[in-house]
Order: sequence, then C-alpha cells, then structure tokens
Amino acid sequence: MFSIVFEPCGCTIRAASGTTILKAAEEAGVRIRSDCGGKGICGKCRVAIRNQLGLEALSQTEAELLTVEEVQLGYRLACRSRVLHPSEKLTVVIPEESSLGERKFQETGIEVYVPLEPAVTKYFISLSKPTLEDFRPDLERLLDSLMIEHHFESLDIDYQLLRSLPKLLREANWNATSVIWNKKKIISIETGDTTNDILGLAVDLGTSKIVAQLVDLTTGETIAVATVDNPQIAWGENIISRISFADGDEENLRILQDMVVSGVNETINRLCSETGRSSSVIYEAVVVGNTVMHHLFLGIEPTYLGLSPFIPSTKRSVNVKACELKVNMNSAGIVNVLPVVAGFVGADAVADLMASGIYNADEATLLIDIGTNTEVFVSSSREVLSCSCASGPAFEGGHISQGMKAMTGAIEKVRIEERTYKVYFDTIGNTKPTGLCGSGIIDAVAEMFRCKIIDRLGRFNRSIETPRLRESGSKMEFVIAWEDEGGVGRDISISEKDISEILLAKAAIFASSSVLMKRRSVSLNDLKKVLIAGALGTNTSPESAKIIGLIPDVPLERIGLLGNSAIVGAKMALVSKSMREEAELVSQRVTYIELTTDPDFSKEFSDALYLPNRDINRFPSVKKALGELKEEIAGAS
Amino acid sequence: MFSIVFEPCGCTIRAASGTTILKAAEEAGVRIRSDCGGKGICGKCRVAIRNQLGLEALSQTEAELLTVEEVQLGYRLACRSRVLHPSEKLTVVIPEESSLGERKFQETGIEVYVPLEPAVTKYFISLSKPTLEDFRPDLERLLDSLMIEHHFESLDIDYQLLRSLPKLLREANWNATSVIWNKKKIISIETGDTTNDILGLAVDLGTSKIVAQLVDLTTGETIAVATVDNPQIAWGENIISRISFADGDEENLRILQDMVVSGVNETINRLCSETGRSSSVIYEAVVVGNTVMHHLFLGIEPTYLGLSPFIPSTKRSVNVKACELKVNMNSAGIVNVLPVVAGFVGADAVADLMASGIYNADEATLLIDIGTNTEVFVSSSREVLSCSCASGPAFEGGHISQGMKAMTGAIEKVRIEERTYKVYFDTIGNTKPTGLCGSGIIDAVAEMFRCKIIDRLGRFNRSIETPRLRESGSKMEFVIAWEDEGGVGRDISISEKDISEILLAKAAIFASSSVLMKRRSVSLNDLKKVLIAGALGTNTSPESAKIIGLIPDVPLERIGLLGNSAIVGAKMALVSKSMREEAELVSQRVTYIELTTDPDFSKEFSDALYLPNRDINRFPSVKKALGELKEEIAGAS
Repeated sequence: MFSIVFEPCGCTIRAASGTTILKAAEEAGVRIRSDCGGKGICGKCRVAIRNQLGLEALSQTEAELLTVEEVQLGYRLACRSRVLHPSEKLTVVIPEESSLGERKFQETGIEVYVPLEPAVTKYFISLSKPTLEDFRPDLERLLDSLMIEHHFESLDIDYQLLRSLPKLLREANWNATSVIWNKKKIISIETGDTTNDILGLAVDLGTSKIVAQLVDLTTGETIAVATVDNPQIAWGENIISRISFADGDEENLRILQDMVVSGVNETINRLCSETGRSSSVIYEAVVVGNTVMHHLFLGIEPTYLGLSPFIPSTKRSVNVKACELKVNMNSAGIVNVLPVVAGFVGADAVADLMASGIYNADEATLLIDIGTNTEVFVSSSREVLSCSCASGPAFEGGHISQGMKAMTGAIEKVRIEERTYKVYFDTIGNTKPTGLCGSGIIDAVAEMFRCKIIDRLGRFNRSIETPRLRESGSKMEFVIAWEDEGGVGRDISISEKDISEILLAKAAIFASSSVLMKRRSVSLNDLKKVLIAGALGTNTSPESAKIIGLIPDVPLERIGLLGNSAIVGAKMALVSKSMREEAELVSQRVTYIELTTDPDFSKEFSDALYLPNRDINRFPSVKKALGELKEEIAGAS
Repeated sequence: MFSIVFEPCGCTIRAASGTTILKAAEEAGVRIRSDCGGKGICGKCRVAIRNQLGLEALSQTEAELLTVEEVQLGYRLACRSRVLHPSEKLTVVIPEESSLGERKFQETGIEVYVPLEPAVTKYFISLSKPTLEDFRPDLERLLDSLMIEHHFESLDIDYQLLRSLPKLLREANWNATSVIWNKKKIISIETGDTTNDILGLAVDLGTSKIVAQLVDLTTGETIAVATVDNPQIAWGENIISRISFADGDEENLRILQDMVVSGVNETINRLCSETGRSSSVIYEAVVVGNTVMHHLFLGIEPTYLGLSPFIPSTKRSVNVKACELKVNMNSAGIVNVLPVVAGFVGADAVADLMASGIYNADEATLLIDIGTNTEVFVSSSREVLSCSCASGPAFEGGHISQGMKAMTGAIEKVRIEERTYKVYFDTIGNTKPTGLCGSGIIDAVAEMFRCKIIDRLGRFNRSIETPRLRESGSKMEFVIAWEDEGGVGRDISISEKDISEILLAKAAIFASSSVLMKRRSVSLNDLKKVLIAGALGTNTSPESAKIIGLIPDVPLERIGLLGNSAIVGAKMALVSKSMREEAELVSQRVTYIELTTDPDFSKEFSDALYLPNRDINRFPSVKKALGELKEEIAGAS
C-alpha cells in the first residue's frame, strides 16, 4: 500500500498498487478536475508528482497531452498515472487550474413575484379524546375535524404516517398540526401548533453545479441559498460521458443517482445549518434540470437520450416521495420534478420560460439559456418554438487551453487598448488570474476583433507588432495576462484554436436562433427582446456578445441578462401550485424543432462562423462601430 | 453448546446455555404449541425430555402445571426448561397434542356470485416507433395510444415503472401489454400480449391461520387454495399476547409484521407452485382479518386496540404497494386491506357481511362469526348492529384440558347413547383421537345434557352409574375416548371445568346476540335466519348448538353454517371493484355497540350460563325434546 500526500490540502491516503492518482484523490476526497471523466482525453487533470519511481512510466496519451516542459517539471495526468511499485511517500501537487476550487455560482436570477399558494399547508386542531361513547378511530376523528373546521372533503393519508398515527396523536395529547399536501393527502402530524414552520426547497440541478434555495412557504421568501458542485462531475464533465457511464448498467445508474441526491442533500445540510432550521420541516422540493439530469436524478435509464431520435422517458412532471429518493427532508415530503420539453430541452428550460414569462407575451422574444447544451426559444403571439444545440463547453471554459469555470481567479472582463494592445482585465474575487471564464473569453474575442488583432474568421493579423502576439510551438497566441500578473506560473493566452472553439459555439447558438426566428417569421426588427440566461450569468457584456455575433444585433436596451432563471422558475413553481400547473401547460405548448433535420441550419451555421457573421449587414450596429472592414479580410473567405 | 434432537421430526440444533427448549425449537423450525406465548401460563408446551441432567431443575410453574405422573415420565414445559450444563445429546419428544400439526383449515365458505369487475385490467398495444419526426417521449407515446384505443383520459404511472419504461418498451419491440390499476395508474408493462394472464389473491388473516385463494381475474375463478398457520402463533395464540408483545416496541412490531407477511408469502409460494403460475402476475390482493391482524399486517401500532376504549388507527380501507409490504407478488401490485368496523369488529366481519349479504336484506338475521373473539351482527330492514365479545378460545379447543384445534385427530362429532352412556365419535382424518375440537365439545356437552349426565349448570349428575364418569384427583370428569381407542396414551375426557369454559363462552355469545336483538327490536319469532361463520366451520351440529343455548331456538331450516365467509367476502371484493366500494359503505353503515357499557348484558350473560338458558321457555324446542326437566335441578340455581 502506498502513502500518497496531496498538496496543497495536505490530505493523505493509502492506495493499492494499480490505483490511478485520480482514483486515489477521489477516495481521499480531494477534487481534481477531469472534464472527460478520467478517459485520458481532456488533459485537464495535470498534477505535478514528486518522486515518480513508484509510478508506471509515462504513457503515450500523457506524452501527447503534456508539453515537454511539463513532463520535465514532473507533470503527469492523474487519470493515467498508476501507482506501481512500493516506494517512499508520493507527493502529488495539484496546480490551481486542475483543482475544482470554489465556483462563482450563478445562484439567483431576476426574481419574479407570484402570489403565495404553496402545495403544502398546515392546520392546527384540538381533537376531543376518545371515550367509550365516542370511539371513532384516530384517522376518522382527525378527518372529521379537518372537514368541520377546514372543509376538507376527501383526504388521504400517507401510509407510513398512518402506521404511527396512534402514537403521534397521543404524544401530542390530541393537540396536533396536520400537514396536508395538495389538499389531498396528510403527510405529517406534529405535536402542538407548528403552522408557522413550513419550508420548501427550489433546486436547479445543473450538469456541473447544484443550486438550491430554502424558501419559507409561509411568506414566500428565500431565506438562504446554497450551491455545490454536482458530485457527478467525478464521472465526467458533460452529460454524454454520464449517459455512457450509466448506459445499460443499473449499478452505475444508481451511483449517478446517489451522487446527485447526495449533492442535493449537501445543499440541504448547508441551508439548515446556516439558518438553524430543521430539514424535517422541508415538506416539498421543486427540482429542475436538463432532461439528462432529470432522468439521472429520478434514476431513469438515460440511454435513449443519447441516441437519435433522443427520446425521454416522459415529459410530464413527476412527484416522488422524498424517502423514495432518499432526499433528506421530511420523509413523507414530496419532490416535484418539473416537466421537460424534449430530450435536449429540459425542466430547466421550462423554468426559464416561466421566469421570463415570454410564452405569455405577444412581443417577439429570443431567449437563450447557454450551457454545454444551449436551449434557444423564439416566441411571439404566445407561441413558442424551441430547439437545443450542442454549443460545447467553450462558454464554460471548456476546450479552451486556459479556460476555466466562473470561479475565483477567472478573468471575467477584458478590455484591449487599440494601438498599444495593452490589456486590462478583472478577475472573479479580485485575485491573481488563473484562467479565462466564458464572459472573459467573449470579451477577449470581441476586443481582439475590435482592435483588428484577429480577422473575421478569427485568424491572427500577423502584421501587428506587440510581444503579446507570438508563436508558441506551431501555433499563434495572444497573451492576455503575463506570468508575473498571474497565479499559475505562466502566461495566460488565447490561441487561434481557442478562438475557433468560441466561433463554433457561437455559430451553433446563432444559427439555432436564426432558424427558429425564420420558422416563427420573426425578423431582426421584430425582435423586441433578447434574453440571455445560464452559464454566462449577469456579468457578460451584451456589447461583446453582439460583436462576436452570439446574439442578433438589437439595441442594447432590448438585451437582458437573466442569470440563473432556472432556479427562479423552480422557486415560482415551489411557492405556487398554479405555477406548477402552468409549467405543465408550458411544456405542452412549446413546439420542439429538431435542428438535425432542418435544411437551413447548416447554411446559417457556416455563415455564423464569421465575426460577427458572413453577412455583415445582419449586424448593422457592429458594422458601424467597427468602421469599414478591409476588403482583403472579407475576401479571404 | 448443546446438541438437542427433536422427535419425532429428528431435527437437531445446537443451543447455548440459558436457551429454553421452546426457543431452541423455534430456531430449529420445530413448532411447539404455546398458547400463552411462552409465558408459563397455558401449560400447552408439554414435552418429554430424555436425559435431563443438562437442564435447570423443575420450576415452581412446571410443578403446578404438570401432574406428578407427567413429571415422572420426564415431561417438562418447553418454555420453562432451560439448558444449563454441558451434557450429552438431549432428546426432546414432542407429543402429538403439543405439536402444531396439520390443521383442518376452514378454507372456503358458501361462494357468492358477483359480476367480474376487477380493479386490474390489461391492454395490449402495438406502438409506433419513435423517429426524428415523431419524437414523443415513451410515456406520452403509450398514453396517447391508451387514450385513442381504450379511452383512458388521465393515467398516472408507477414511479418505479417509469424508471425502466424506456428499456421495457424497447425490449418489447414496442408491442407491449399495459397493466392498469383502478383505471388510474399503469403498474406494469409486459412484453407482448399477456392480457390472458391476470391473477389476484384473496387472503383471510386469521389469528391462528392464514387462508389464501388464488383467483384468475380474467374468469373470476378460484384456481387454488392454500392455508398455513399464522407464524405469529410463536408469539402467542391470542391477539392480546401479540398486542402486549408489540406494545411500544417497534422492533417487536416489525417482527410480528414480518411474520404475518411471511405467512402470506408462504401461501403464495404454495399457490404458485401448485398451479405453475408466476407470482409476478398477481397484481392485486384483498386482505381481511380482525382489527388487530389488520394493524399488525400493516405495521400499525396495535397498543390502543388493547386498551379501553379500544380505538383503531383507522377504519377505512387501505391500499399499499406490494413492495412496501414485502408481499411477494408483482412489486407494483396493490394490496387492498378491507375496512374495519371497530376495534373488535374487523375487516373479516365486513367480509362476513358482504358474503352473507344480510346488510341488504329486510328480514331479521343473526350472524355470528365465532372465534376467540366473536363478532355478532343483528340486521333487519337493512340496518345492522354489531358487537364483539371475548368468547375465549374454548370453541377452538383452548382452555379445555384435552381441547385442540380442528386438526387431524380431533374428535369433531360425539353421540352418547342414553342409558348405556356408550360414546360414539368421529375424528378429523379418521385417525385415532388425540383431543376434542370445538364442534366435538359442543356435541359432547349437548349430548351429556341430553342424557342428563350433566345438569342445567353443567354439573355432573353423580348418581349415574358408568365407569366413564369418575373422579380424577379432586375433580369429576366424563371419559369420551378410552386410552386404547386413542393416540395419546391416556383417556380423553371432559371435566366440569371444561364444561364451565364452554358455558362461559356460549353465554357471552348468546348474551351479545340477545342484547343486539333487543336493541334492534327483533324477537325470536322475527328471526328468519341464524348464520354461523368462523371457527366452528360447516361440520357443527346446529341441533347441539341450540341445545347448549349457543344460538337462539329457531327451526333448524333457518340455521345456516357459512364456514369461512371472511375469505368469501375477500374474494368478492377482489373480483369486483363495486364490491370493494360496497365494503366501505358496509363498514360505515354498521353501528357498533360497546357491550361493556350495556346494562342488559350482565343479566343476559348470567341467564345464559344455564343449559340452554335460565329461562327454559326461550328454548321451546329444546324444552320439548328433552321432556320435562326435574324441578330439583332447576331449583338448584
């Protein structure tokens, strides 16, 4: 058995021969970034290992994914390096960019007021005690009072509650509070008057993060918010890795379900310890997430979500008893998972729609919820078209050489001075930069384009004279932060390949928007609102988004950043039964368009690979701001 | 560790020091009778033990409950004798009367036809396969077809089924049968057309036996019947011992619930192996039982059923998923427990009422379901009064010195020749007699009374000259079977104390009947039907029942023996949803009378302690048949 010390956290674990460093880290509770799920593809699990005598020799994969310098410095891929021979203590140093640090989670969005109408209600009743003359059974005694005092005609009772009803009523000395779900079912009996104590949980199950709001259902107020990484990340950053992990293997599916439930339970622990409230008075949770997260959370086999024609098990909302899902709230409480629209348009999208309300508006609106999969909606006259596109992880920092999630140290804003090419940037947490997150990359590309550092195809203008633009190996890159400004011991730069990733991502999103607009006959001028939700949060520059052609060229005042509108929609459904019914209608009313069969999509996509678009006239304000672009650049296409 | 061999079965077990023989037998799977639940009260667990050196010395309890002869023959009480010192092999011989042999179960009653209308129905559907054009989710695809082809408007689906729906539909190549419960919920999906394969289970949970019928729900036919001892017997013969075992102890309650469920599962095993059918196509079970069995089966704390005012947890019917109860049928199948009337008038009584139909009849009827607790109903003009009385176990052979259950070897019919006092008897299974069961005891007492061997107070007429009437120790007894006729190595006799037990039991039942008749203003002449259900089965002599004053003196053609009408009622509710709704109404409509507060009861009870009654004029036909009774006997009261 090997003794492995992880730095900087100092955690130690003994690992058996054959174990990978990634696996050992998981067991030690040390979190190493692994976007591909440990398959030796992403190269993100770089760690520096001192004393490599006990390890297997460098693999072919590592040789390809690591630079010569990195190998010389003792870097290995945690997923590929296996402990082999007995040795002295092995020390693994996890560099900041390979560590899953504290995320700047998108916890909230623009709150929308809905009248308080929760599914769970409480009623305090003083019952008469049974006698030889009044020998009504316990339940009937209770139901009679609930009928007389609160007009409930036909209530059911949770079976497990029925089992302990005699004891509970007598312990309460017949003065008890009934907790009733949906005016249909008694789910809990509590001693004395607890009518002021009703909590609910709104949960957004993101592929990479879980956000939860603890809501006081007597007031509708959010009393605390917590966010944790989705623990499924250890099995792959994206949903496709997780589908393939769960595919046909019930045990693996169970692991993924357990992981996401444990993540939800972790948010509950944090929320309860922060507020000093008991998890047993959380009677209801409303959960949203993309369709794969929806399936994994409910333990539904996700296989066919990953195979054309991408069919979900169901689209309707699902109610499950908390104890059946092992969610740590009142055990007879109800977990409501909101409906989905289609295989790639999930309950989070339904929540987006509810939060934005666009399905009820006459004016033409474009709503984009950006993530690894991006959902796009175009609505007008109360009809909504939706589609989903695989925009990839670029806007979340994935597939970008020095990209990272929006967490501490990420560069989130970039401004480049014309002529001098001096770069100004802000980082999350105002620490030294360790990489670039989505909004930073958008800014950087927009600024490089504005300053003509790159052309309309995202290629560097090699005639520019600045040390920031340089060759590194066979590729060109532009330095955003110098080594001495940063926290990773090297320059932070953007390569042509990175720019190409961004162009692919924004092209997919813009093409999707264009196809839906065309289908719904919405022109650029018709468009009264462009709403951006999801990964980019509320700090993205709408101007930069327009310049790179991510969104149509509408006046800035028509552009809104919603942030995490999925959690907002989830909370709306939590505090209001009517909104929950509305969610069902929304999911029915949205028409899903399958882009893979749309003839316009590929033309729109290839046009959108230009900055901002092959047809510059579709971006009049960008065209104007940038001035006349040189013919030779345009002609290069 | 001791090695203990049980004979005649030959089972061997190793037991630790301090273990009782009863406990060791349980562990070895050897069933020893123990009416009091191992408390050293009933004295029924007599066993002969060879080589007692390793045992604790005879206890005071054993000295009191065993005769000197028994002690000399090596008899001990299994519940009181503990293994103590290491020793050679210990051999425990279980005499027939202490063994829980094969019971002559009351498996069926008079079948009542009801139109077939089961809650579970099946529909075979060929679904179209999903395509990129028709990307409806699996559930919605199925629901659409169920709506179009079978007009189901709003179906729900079992959550666990939803989890495997994608796999099931694809394994079935989209040709699948949906199993729908109560027109509300899809509980199973099966490959191909299985519409001919629908089974249901009707169960009567008796305190001492469990009877189950396997019913083909496509025809309504009972295809097999199985009966097992209620495994809870190891924790006491009567419900009061079980209530006290479970009282306030969740673990003990769980044991009792597990035991009764394992009994039900044993009937399922037998039924399925007998018929070659799979338990997975049993989709529904309807269960009846007294209120304590109802609570124990559902795992509801029974404490308050044993304390005045004897309040049940609920009276309404309860539906529970089979997997929640661990009943070995289709895991999403539904177990329906029929409603009860009150603490001592259970779902079995509701089933009796349904089978007899008396609640719908205008004519005055008395229905008695005899057991350790006897339920009595008097109905007229569609109104039903009910009560329960603690008649004790005498009619089941309990508290009778040589009484036994109606199992192989029990004397079930007795005739005594006047003058010669010669006794003729029949035994169950036509084997040598080992004791007397209920119907045999009723016959014996009636015949002894008819032949003036006993007087109206059940005392022996000492002037009679026959070797059968003799003193044994300080008490008188009458020999029914001589040692050489029998199978237990001693005479089988009835003592004055035994007769007194019978008088107490019949007095309680008759007094209850009388009180209810008075309350409902039903006279002897009004009474158009007297129905006897339960323990006494269909072999009891109505004439003898009248002679001892167990039932009112109505013409023989008005007396009906229903046998196990509880299982008949359970089956009616199983094959017909309407009957199940009817059961709910029946339970609501029956008025329960608490006898302990009734002023007439004690007077009626003390009158009924006479044979047939203190007021002989209430039994005109008995009076006539017996001729004028001597004044001195009547005057003795």
